[in-house]
Amino acid sequence: MPKVVLHYFPLKALGESARLLLAYGGQEFEDKRVSMEDWPAYKPSTPFGQMPVLEIDGKQYAQSMAIARYLGRKYGLSGQDIEVDFEIDQNIEFVNDIRAKAASVHYEPDEAIKEKKHEDFVKNQYPFLIGKLDEMIKKNKGHIAAGKLTWADFVFAGMFDYLKVMLRMPDLEQKYPSFKQVIDAVYADAKVKAYSENVPKADVNF
Amino acid sequence: MPKVVLHYFPLKALGESARLLLAYGGQEFEDKRVSMEDWPAYKPSTPFGQMPVLEIDGKQYAQSMAIARYLGRKYGLSGQDIEVDFEIDQNIEFVNDIRAKAASVHYEPDEAIKEKKHEDFVKNQYPFLIGKLDEMIKKNKGHIAAGKLTWADFVFAGMFDYLKVMLRMPDLEQKYPSFKQVIDAVYADAKVKAYSENVPKADVNF
Repeated sequence: MPKVVLHYFPLKALGESARLLLAYGGQEFEDKRVSMEDWPAYKPSTPFGQMPVLEIDGKQYAQSMAIARYLGRKYGLSGQDIEVDFEIDQNIEFVNDIRAKAASVHYEPDEAIKEKKHEDFVKNQYPFLIGKLDEMIKKNKGHIAAGKLTWADFVFAGMFDYLKVMLRMPDLEQKYPSFKQVIDAVYADAKVKAYSENVPKADVNF
Repeated sequence: MPKVVLHYFPLKALGESARLLLAYGGQEFEDKRVSMEDWPAYKPSTPFGQMPVLEIDGKQYAQSMAIARYLGRKYGLSGQDIEVDFEIDQNIEFVNDIRAKAASVHYEPDEAIKEKKHEDFVKNQYPFLIGKLDEMIKKNKGHIAAGKLTWADFVFAGMFDYLKVMLRMPDLEQKYPSFKQVIDAVYADAKVKAYSENVPKADVNF
């Protein structure tokens, strides 16, 4: 078994998908959680000055979506042909667009602009995007794509709490039970469940 | 040969990579250029209310990066194994991060905020990111990844003029000759060159 280290902040956000996928794959890994305090000193040791970083036998890889796609292919969670992979990529990129939109509000430093933008998105963007996502998941029988469990479900499950915080929608899965189906399908795996029960309690919960 | 239609605005931006890849693959396609004027009426016919859309025998696919990865795999422009694909994904996602950052300035509606943000990024973000990209391309012998021509080069070449406009760096490839190497490698293909010489002259040039 290769020696694997996953470097990320002590939160879920963009790093949890990799942790969930490694757990699913039965891959032992060092879950290196780098505090915000330690990050500036740590940053130069990463390929692009960003985390997550997946390290396999000393070789470092970056970019959360690339990491999830790779682990998904490795553990049999991708498509059976390039057309199905295309659909998985397409659908998870759409989810990622929603995340990026919500992040552009969440990380806006100017409070007045932030609130104005949030109101605008709540009115003019989120309903359409979230409605499309709900439609997509229903069409795929409780999954993001391909009508089955794929690595895209792990990306969604991993970022869901983070997404809710950024969208300011704490009851998102109550409003859209289809979203809960995706998450439940991921945590239904015994190894994923075992991992999730052992996450450090001191961590930020999204 | 399947019937292929590429739907996008009359500009390069996020749609050109698909056009370049289709040309490279020798795939005849209808290059459907939807004007900004026609877009609101056209939008509901797309999967996510976004373009580009790649239509293959009537089936529609969205998301520019997913489209490019699919066409790349189809035309022999991906990696020989999942580790190389991982590197390609990682590197082009990094390029895409730079684009997204520049876009967050370019599409900022408030002029004062826009200028402030641009100045901040010129000082604190772009030099590091562009330096990393230059380093990456040099390491890969004039390519984005894997030390050879891949679909990632097509994504970079397709969005390069758009990126320059958003970064406000009209002489970017003079400052970084490595960037020019990537673009030249893409247009060196006779079919890509032939396509590029027949692009409608009335189109927006980025």
